[in-house]
Amino acid sequence: MTDNPTACLLIIGNEVLSGRTRDANLQFLATRLGELGIPLREARVIPDVPETIVGTVNECRAKFTHVFTTGGIGPTHDDITSECVARAFGVPWEVHAETRALMAADYARRSPAVEFNEARLRMATLPRGAVPIRCPETTAPGFSMENVHVMAGVPRIMRSMFEALAPGLEGGRPILSHTVHAHYVYEGQIAAGLSAIQAKYPGLDLGSYPYYRSGGGGGVALVAKGTEASAVAAAAEEMFALLAGFGDAQQGEPAMEPSA
Amino acid sequence: MTDNPTACLLIIGNEVLSGRTRDANLQFLATRLGELGIPLREARVIPDVPETIVGTVNECRAKFTHVFTTGGIGPTHDDITSECVARAFGVPWEVHAETRALMAADYARRSPAVEFNEARLRMATLPRGAVPIRCPETTAPGFSMENVHVMAGVPRIMRSMFEALAPGLEGGRPILSHTVHAHYVYEGQIAAGLSAIQAKYPGLDLGSYPYYRSGGGGGVALVAKGTEASAVAAAAEEMFALLAGFGDAQQGEPAMEPSA
Repeated sequence: MTDNPTACLLIIGNEVLSGRTRDANLQFLATRLGELGIPLREARVIPDVPETIVGTVNECRAKFTHVFTTGGIGPTHDDITSECVARAFGVPWEVHAETRALMAADYARRSPAVEFNEARLRMATLPRGAVPIRCPETTAPGFSMENVHVMAGVPRIMRSMFEALAPGLEGGRPILSHTVHAHYVYEGQIAAGLSAIQAKYPGLDLGSYPYYRSGGGGGVALVAKGTEASAVAAAAEEMFALLAGFGDAQQGEPAMEPSA
Repeated sequence: MTDNPTACLLIIGNEVLSGRTRDANLQFLATRLGELGIPLREARVIPDVPETIVGTVNECRAKFTHVFTTGGIGPTHDDITSECVARAFGVPWEVHAETRALMAADYARRSPAVEFNEARLRMATLPRGAVPIRCPETTAPGFSMENVHVMAGVPRIMRSMFEALAPGLEGGRPILSHTVHAHYVYEGQIAAGLSAIQAKYPGLDLGSYPYYRSGGGGGVALVAKGTEASAVAAAAEEMFALLAGFGDAQQGEPAMEPSA
C-alpha cells in the first residue's frame, strides 16, 4: 500500500504453541507499530528450538525493515533467544560489561540482596555489537542487533522495552483509517459493491469484517485504509452510501489506525 | 520430543496484523491439537496478499503433517484464501456442485429468502479435489485439500469446523504434563537446578514460566511434558523438591495438556 518501512514479529516460546499461555503482545505491537507508520506485515510463533530461531531470524531480518522478538530472554535453560540471535549474526555471545555492572548494583541494593549467580549472568550476556534496550521495569535488558529488536515476553516488561525503543525507530507515513458499519447488513449483500469501490481506489486497502451478536443478528464493518486522507474519506463516503442502501448504516469517526 | 504428527497454523487476515482484531483461534487450536497428540509447532499471521498466502501454504504443507488455516473464506473481495490454496496446489478453483445445492436450499428456506448472488457463490467455489468441511453453524463450508485444512476466521464457526474435522485426523501419543509452582521463588534461583533436571530427562521438555501478581510478588511455574508417564512424574517430583528448597512450593495435579 505504501513504501513505508515494514515490521515482522517473532513470538518465541513453547508455551504459546501449547496453548498454556495466550499471547498478549501481538495486538499491542500491531497497534503501536501501525501508529508509527511501520506496519506489521507478518507474525510468527515459533518454539524454543535453536535451529528454528536462528533460521527464522535470518529469513525475516532479510525480508522486513525491522524484526521484533518477544520471549526467551530470562535466566533458565529454555531462554535461548539471545544466544540464537548471536548465532544468526555469526558473532560471539559474551558478557556485556556495562549491563553486568548495572545488574550487580541493582541486585546489591535489594533487601535481602539478590545473588548474582551464573543463571542471572546469562541476562547480562549479549551478542557482540548489540545495543541494550533499558527500561524502568528491570535492569535485565532487551537489545537491538542491527534491525532485530529482542524484547521480553512478559507483557508489562515488553511494553516498557518497546516504548524505550520506539523514539529511535524511523517511522513512515501514518496510515489513515475510516470505518463505517451497519447492523442487519451482511457481507454477501455488499460484496459486489465493495469490489467496485476497491477497484476505483487501488491505492487503498478496503476490508470487510462481519460481526455477530449473541442472541442473533449482526452486521458488517467496512474499513478503508491508506496514506492519502482525501482518498480515504472519499472511499468511506462511498462505502457508507453502499451500506445505507441496505440497512441501518452508521458512519464511524475518522481515526488514526494501524495499517493493514 | 516425540515422533507425533505435527501441525502448523496460518492465521490469514490484515485485521489481525493491524491490531484491529485480536486473534481468538490460536489458543483454542493449540490446546485441541495438543489433546489429539498433533502438537502445534508453528503459527504464522499473514496478510491478504496472494503471493504470500500461496508461498506460505506451499512452504508449510511440505514441512508439517497438517496445515490449518483460519480466515479469508467469506464472500468479499478480500476473502482470497480458497483461490490461493487452489493456486498453491496448481488445480482449478471451481464451483462445487454439491455445496452449491446445499447453499441454494438453505438460502431458499430462509424468510425472507436470501439471494444466492455471485458473491455468495464464491463460498461454494473450491479447489478441484477439495473435501468440504461441513458444520452446523453455516452451509458455506471449509475444506481439506490433502493436508491443508481451510477454516473460517470467526471463532464460533472455526470451532465448529474443527470439531467436524477432528475425528478424521490421525492423532499421536497424548502428551502428559505435570506442573509444580511456588510463590516467592524466582527463576534466577532455580535455573541451575532446573538445567540439571532437564539434563537427566532429555526425552522431556521442561519449561519455566515466571508470573507476577499486581501489587508485587510473584513466583514460578515449572512444567514437565512428555509421552512417558513415569518420566514425567519423576521429573515433576524433582522439580517440586527444587522449589521446596526455596519457598512455598505447591505440587500441581497431573494433567493432560497439549505438547510444547
